[in-house]
Amino acid sequence: MPVISQRGIEIPASPIRKLTPLANAARERGIKVYHLNIGQPDLPTPQKALDVMKHIDRKVLEYSPSQGFLSLRKKLSGYYHRFNINLEPDDIIITSGGSEAVLFAFMSCLNPGDEIIIPEPAYANYMAFAVSAGAIIKSVPSSIDTGFALPPIEKFEALITDRTRAILICNPNNPTGYLYSRAEMNRLRDLVKKYDLYLFSDEVYREFIYTGSPYISACHLEGIQENVVLIDSVSKRYSECGIRIGALATRNEAVKSAVMKFCQARLSPPLIGQIIAEASIDGTEEYSAEVYDEYVARRKCLVDGLNRIPGVYSPIPMGAFYTVARLPVDDAEKFCMWCLTDFDYEGETVMMAPGSGFYSDPDLGRDEVRLAYVLDRKDLERAVFILGQALQSYPHRR
Amino acid sequence: MPVISQRGIEIPASPIRKLTPLANAARERGIKVYHLNIGQPDLPTPQKALDVMKHIDRKVLEYSPSQGFLSLRKKLSGYYHRFNINLEPDDIIITSGGSEAVLFAFMSCLNPGDEIIIPEPAYANYMAFAVSAGAIIKSVPSSIDTGFALPPIEKFEALITDRTRAILICNPNNPTGYLYSRAEMNRLRDLVKKYDLYLFSDEVYREFIYTGSPYISACHLEGIQENVVLIDSVSKRYSECGIRIGALATRNEAVKSAVMKFCQARLSPPLIGQIIAEASIDGTEEYSAEVYDEYVARRKCLVDGLNRIPGVYSPIPMGAFYTVARLPVDDAEKFCMWCLTDFDYEGETVMMAPGSGFYSDPDLGRDEVRLAYVLDRKDLERAVFILGQALQSYPHRR
Repeated sequence: MPVISQRGIEIPASPIRKLTPLANAARERGIKVYHLNIGQPDLPTPQKALDVMKHIDRKVLEYSPSQGFLSLRKKLSGYYHRFNINLEPDDIIITSGGSEAVLFAFMSCLNPGDEIIIPEPAYANYMAFAVSAGAIIKSVPSSIDTGFALPPIEKFEALITDRTRAILICNPNNPTGYLYSRAEMNRLRDLVKKYDLYLFSDEVYREFIYTGSPYISACHLEGIQENVVLIDSVSKRYSECGIRIGALATRNEAVKSAVMKFCQARLSPPLIGQIIAEASIDGTEEYSAEVYDEYVARRKCLVDGLNRIPGVYSPIPMGAFYTVARLPVDDAEKFCMWCLTDFDYEGETVMMAPGSGFYSDPDLGRDEVRLAYVLDRKDLERAVFILGQALQSYPHRR
Repeated sequence: MPVISQRGIEIPASPIRKLTPLANAARERGIKVYHLNIGQPDLPTPQKALDVMKHIDRKVLEYSPSQGFLSLRKKLSGYYHRFNINLEPDDIIITSGGSEAVLFAFMSCLNPGDEIIIPEPAYANYMAFAVSAGAIIKSVPSSIDTGFALPPIEKFEALITDRTRAILICNPNNPTGYLYSRAEMNRLRDLVKKYDLYLFSDEVYREFIYTGSPYISACHLEGIQENVVLIDSVSKRYSECGIRIGALATRNEAVKSAVMKFCQARLSPPLIGQIIAEASIDGTEEYSAEVYDEYVARRKCLVDGLNRIPGVYSPIPMGAFYTVARLPVDDAEKFCMWCLTDFDYEGETVMMAPGSGFYSDPDLGRDEVRLAYVLDRKDLERAVFILGQALQSYPHRR
């Protein structure tokens, strides 16, 4: 049998993947599993977008432009301007989900062996894209005790070597829900400027900010517009993760031109998805307002519920639809598995994402879990209640 | 401005891309351009598939499984069995077009610095995916004088080093339309076996074989089932390039498992595209027969027409919907540009893909062009006539 690539082996399997067969087995035993582990909103896609899909009147489902339809890029440009982000249609490249935008950003800006600094906990798949690009992630842990605020900038600076090329942030953050403040963003800006680094900024959750704090996009930062590469996606904000439409946007011409070569190689982003995405952007204000109100209520329901369980602590997430909570257990991964294999309360249990999957250092996040609030409030309340029961019964409670 | 990745620079720009602005300018001057340069079929997508799209009754366009829907993989497995290819649903991984299948095959099987041997002329984007994976393409040129038959296997063997990991073929071939014979496939099999290499086989044009010669899939070859990675796509056979649905299929468990990590990182292939692809596979026999007959007629129209032009030679392509022809010019790329900038016949001209774009060696393919027969016969006849006129007027005719 031929030798396999190291790269294929190096990508860490997400801890959720270990849990999935256990959840399936639990369901086969007739147990109802509340999924607090996933980032797939349960809310409907805007009806307007679904209707447009049903009325597509094309005879040939042909390639679209490698950069994506100009009409979609115009709509996105208008959307960004509403957030005071000055990106023109030519600055925007449509990708197959935010995922492809991250991959192409890494491929275009990083040489093999280059380093990228990421505050953690962080979205686990960044690692896979870094492995694909041969880049090395250096992580700066943030702490639940500070609500996952940006770690002191000196911690970032201490990691900078002659191979450091970029800092990556996710804002509002997956998995923590943290929203970086203006002061934090300015500190990042100064560091990016000082060392002439790229700032990759994944801002797919910008619509979901709950505290009245201002949303400071990387694109708002002055003096580093050549350094910023924005990662975006329509997946979460219009509950259309399946259409695989994201975007990479930058004012940096050299980056655009490099990214376009990768885009041309894969020919085009999904045609139907672009049509659906385009229909989702305008005329969906009422939809967005309803979705927003729903997440506000769910967030309160989840976070209040968690903090009422003895020994559990969740910071109040300022954005996105996740929180990272601390549980009174020895090992959250074991506890998450136990919930699926050895526990049920009246035939029901919960599935959560173990915190360790969001850190490079295997010693971190051991007593943390990520919980998503993508269930309706009734289910969410019940899920939190069941989590409380599970913690009462768990033999390795701390 | 931060340093850009070398990788982004290394990907060669396709010569078609140089021509596109010239074609746009010609159109702006009111000139009609016949596109013989593209691989986008003009034929309609099956009505059945379009109807299914219009009747999708989902409220949430959610993520699909990273491996692709089981129902689609079952249909594909059935489809392969009709070609005597034994691939089960578990052997099949749905990708965003054949493009992603090639990228994931390279990423999963090749380490940076590993070498892959490809007979040329070859599909230009293989190079971009090789650059993405840090792999190195070693090419073996085939010749128009032998109709682009597989070069002697000794030429492949002579390139093998301790970094050689794979051979890649496209069969039937893009750009040449050549179909590898059983004897040629057996020679490849023996070499693959002798050195325990991967055989990446891009067979997206299998439905388009015109000569009665048998289609020998890499999957038919005995004794190398662990070595074969099949690249497939529904794009060409159902004229649905825009939905971005392809597949990677292999019996090799280690490869499957590595590929799945890349699949999980990008979450899922396009949802709507999968639904459309699934509807295209069965119950479209009449459609496929009509499409086939149309290409048979077009092929005859194009190849006969080309060979009637003095000084032009086209082998008779056995499959796909392209041919590579030799033109009596000094430099086909210059000629293709000239057709768009300095020539028209009664307000009409042609756009072709210069042959040099399909070879690594800049000295090869200089008097060749790739022509696709994706226009209707009337337009195709007219385009060939205009090409003849252009060659008569061209000042650097040889």
